[in-house]
Amino acid sequence: MDRRHFTRLASRGLALGMVQPALGIVRPRLRQPPDLLVDGDRLNRTLTELARFGATPDGGVSRVAYSDADLAAREWVATLMGDAGLDVSVDLAGNLIGRQPGSDPELPPLLLGSHIDSVPSGGNYDGQVGSMAALEVATTLTDVGHRTRHGLEFVVWANEEGGKTGSRAVSGEVDPAELDVMTASGFTIGDGTLRIGGDLGRLEEARREPGSLAAYFELHIEQGFVLDRAGIDIGVVEGIVGIKRWNVTVEGFANHAGTTPMNQRKDAMVSAARMIEAVNQIARSTPGRQVATVGRVNAEPGAPNVIPGRITFSLEIRDLEMSKIDEVFEAIRGEATRLAESDGTSVGFEQFYTSRAAPTALPLRDVIEAEAQRLSLTTLRMPSGAGHDAQSIALLGPVGMIFVPSLEGISHSPLERTTPEHITAGANVLLRSLLAVDEGEL
Amino acid sequence: MDRRHFTRLASRGLALGMVQPALGIVRPRLRQPPDLLVDGDRLNRTLTELARFGATPDGGVSRVAYSDADLAAREWVATLMGDAGLDVSVDLAGNLIGRQPGSDPELPPLLLGSHIDSVPSGGNYDGQVGSMAALEVATTLTDVGHRTRHGLEFVVWANEEGGKTGSRAVSGEVDPAELDVMTASGFTIGDGTLRIGGDLGRLEEARREPGSLAAYFELHIEQGFVLDRAGIDIGVVEGIVGIKRWNVTVEGFANHAGTTPMNQRKDAMVSAARMIEAVNQIARSTPGRQVATVGRVNAEPGAPNVIPGRITFSLEIRDLEMSKIDEVFEAIRGEATRLAESDGTSVGFEQFYTSRAAPTALPLRDVIEAEAQRLSLTTLRMPSGAGHDAQSIALLGPVGMIFVPSLEGISHSPLERTTPEHITAGANVLLRSLLAVDEGEL
Repeated sequence: MDRRHFTRLASRGLALGMVQPALGIVRPRLRQPPDLLVDGDRLNRTLTELARFGATPDGGVSRVAYSDADLAAREWVATLMGDAGLDVSVDLAGNLIGRQPGSDPELPPLLLGSHIDSVPSGGNYDGQVGSMAALEVATTLTDVGHRTRHGLEFVVWANEEGGKTGSRAVSGEVDPAELDVMTASGFTIGDGTLRIGGDLGRLEEARREPGSLAAYFELHIEQGFVLDRAGIDIGVVEGIVGIKRWNVTVEGFANHAGTTPMNQRKDAMVSAARMIEAVNQIARSTPGRQVATVGRVNAEPGAPNVIPGRITFSLEIRDLEMSKIDEVFEAIRGEATRLAESDGTSVGFEQFYTSRAAPTALPLRDVIEAEAQRLSLTTLRMPSGAGHDAQSIALLGPVGMIFVPSLEGISHSPLERTTPEHITAGANVLLRSLLAVDEGEL
Repeated sequence: MDRRHFTRLASRGLALGMVQPALGIVRPRLRQPPDLLVDGDRLNRTLTELARFGATPDGGVSRVAYSDADLAAREWVATLMGDAGLDVSVDLAGNLIGRQPGSDPELPPLLLGSHIDSVPSGGNYDGQVGSMAALEVATTLTDVGHRTRHGLEFVVWANEEGGKTGSRAVSGEVDPAELDVMTASGFTIGDGTLRIGGDLGRLEEARREPGSLAAYFELHIEQGFVLDRAGIDIGVVEGIVGIKRWNVTVEGFANHAGTTPMNQRKDAMVSAARMIEAVNQIARSTPGRQVATVGRVNAEPGAPNVIPGRITFSLEIRDLEMSKIDEVFEAIRGEATRLAESDGTSVGFEQFYTSRAAPTALPLRDVIEAEAQRLSLTTLRMPSGAGHDAQSIALLGPVGMIFVPSLEGISHSPLERTTPEHITAGANVLLRSLLAVDEGEL
């Protein structure tokens, strides 16, 4: 083993938190702490403590937004924020924010955060890893007495799982009608927000201005198995994919399954089956990383002895580029129309949902990748197929997003898991990317 | 136009009822009335009168078995049977029977019949054409004073649409548990049978012995569009097809539609779509007239943003030969298993329904065909894809079945229609086939 290889391994071991970093030497007011790393043990301990709030017997968590468990967890996190020397407040959308002023009051703040609310019967990592890692970054900076140039805001976004309410209120995307939407907590979004100290009755005031922040970083578990299967430490997120959804209706002619010969049928089921296969083939054969999914299907009249006259199915296409979604859709629509013609059926598409793509900032991807590689962590540039608070904040300023591997890709389940080593590694990349941006290395 | 052609057309016009047959000359006790035809006008008038019972505003009929409309119609038919000189009774299964003794008491009876109950919101032809044609045959024979060698039974079978209860009780196929089944009339099959004068509490006694009848003839509308599209007058039914049904389950792996790349999916929907297309291709490409249908489909979990982990769909195969059904099924199962392997899914088949095929008697097909052709009617040998009372009676003796065209193949609908000419033609084939068999021309 040559020295270079040894150094790399040692550095990698350190970044992964396998060796306790030597944090005894406090370097106050150093502009660029060269080897600063988070305390991985402390971070993973904090995550274990957070897991108590809403814990379920199967080892998972039910900490739906606005529930008692959510409120208790937020109070506990607020205390930790205070312990880390942050100035703690709750904004009108119910977002829990710990602030640290910067040395240069002219600079807009740098934001870090994620969420701690869960889906019903969820796991202990989704959102929580990023939230606790941001808190660990704050604690680490306080421990070493490092003052950043930019003011820092450590944010726990409200009700991510129930509609990204906190981050979308900040980006001005919440519709007043949403306040009446019932959540899994038993409270409406409006009432729930009041419960956690916000007031969405004053929606306009919850909003922030585009350009009002220097950058936003979010660390999150991948919620897919790309990193885990490839054995890669860090995902450099290129953006949150856009989504479009359609209801597709195939009309044939319902008829007696016994008296209608095969060659005289207008079978909506067979025609739809060909289209569903075409969706898959087009999505696979088109260059790129788009995904297309048929998740729901219904046959009418839906009896074993009747040739279906109508099939409805859902079509969802996701990609980082909205234009790519449209391109794939047009290919699917063209092929479906051609199949319908040859089958004697007809097909119609009704779009019912759009979520715009939110690319991350190119310079922040470079920073994250460089910092990860400096820590000898392996990286992969990848899209995020799932939605995140970063998606909302991208409307206000540059966002950077860091993924750590989800074991087996399992998420929204008590079986969700990310190793302590990868959590520590992700937090270190978060810390060092933040410092790099703060130092103006963009 | 040469003479032969003219004669053929004239004869055809007569058989179709377009010319009123000259029935003024009564030939009592003639063993073989050479030119006997039914009174087509009277038959079609009788059908129009029957249509009053349970008539719906859209021109259709709701005369579900055991309903007041069914009871009223049966009473009216019983009166007509009496007027035709028949001895009227109701058996333990509620079947309405008009009997005429034969000249040779040693011979088993010849049966003719169909049903007059309808589906809810049905039409005026299904079952009713065959029932009124049988009554017209009785009236015609009485009018000319013709005494057949065999005793005759003109039967209106009970509750055909709700499970062929009357004919199946006679063939010994009704399970005692069926008596508690609720029908569309609001009465159970047991209570409904009591209402129409039967008593299925004495199921065993409703049964008849195999060999206890010489033959059974049933005239029925096709309920498909084969005859109508081909412009053919008479379908010589080769039998009622057998049916097998399966629930097919395709297991993949449910996953996030955003975070799971196309090439790493185990998508039960796409795999099922390929199988459904294979069902169609195998059914079409296998020589024969089998039909295979997927009428029902369900996706789990069934959300637009989740790759389905499980698809269930129904598979139904029908053919005149049960062995052909099995052969087609094995081809489908083999291909589905191969597709599952290549897709990384699994597939299972659970059979949940069997209805055995009921071939008609070969000699009766020949008789029907010959008599139709003697009337210059065009014929086609064909399977019956739908079930009929003849299916039950085939367990007791030879059955012959005659189809007349359904316009556009529409059935079980107020739009159901068969022309008066074809109704008359069918009744004439029924009459002459009966007489041919009675005369021992088999």
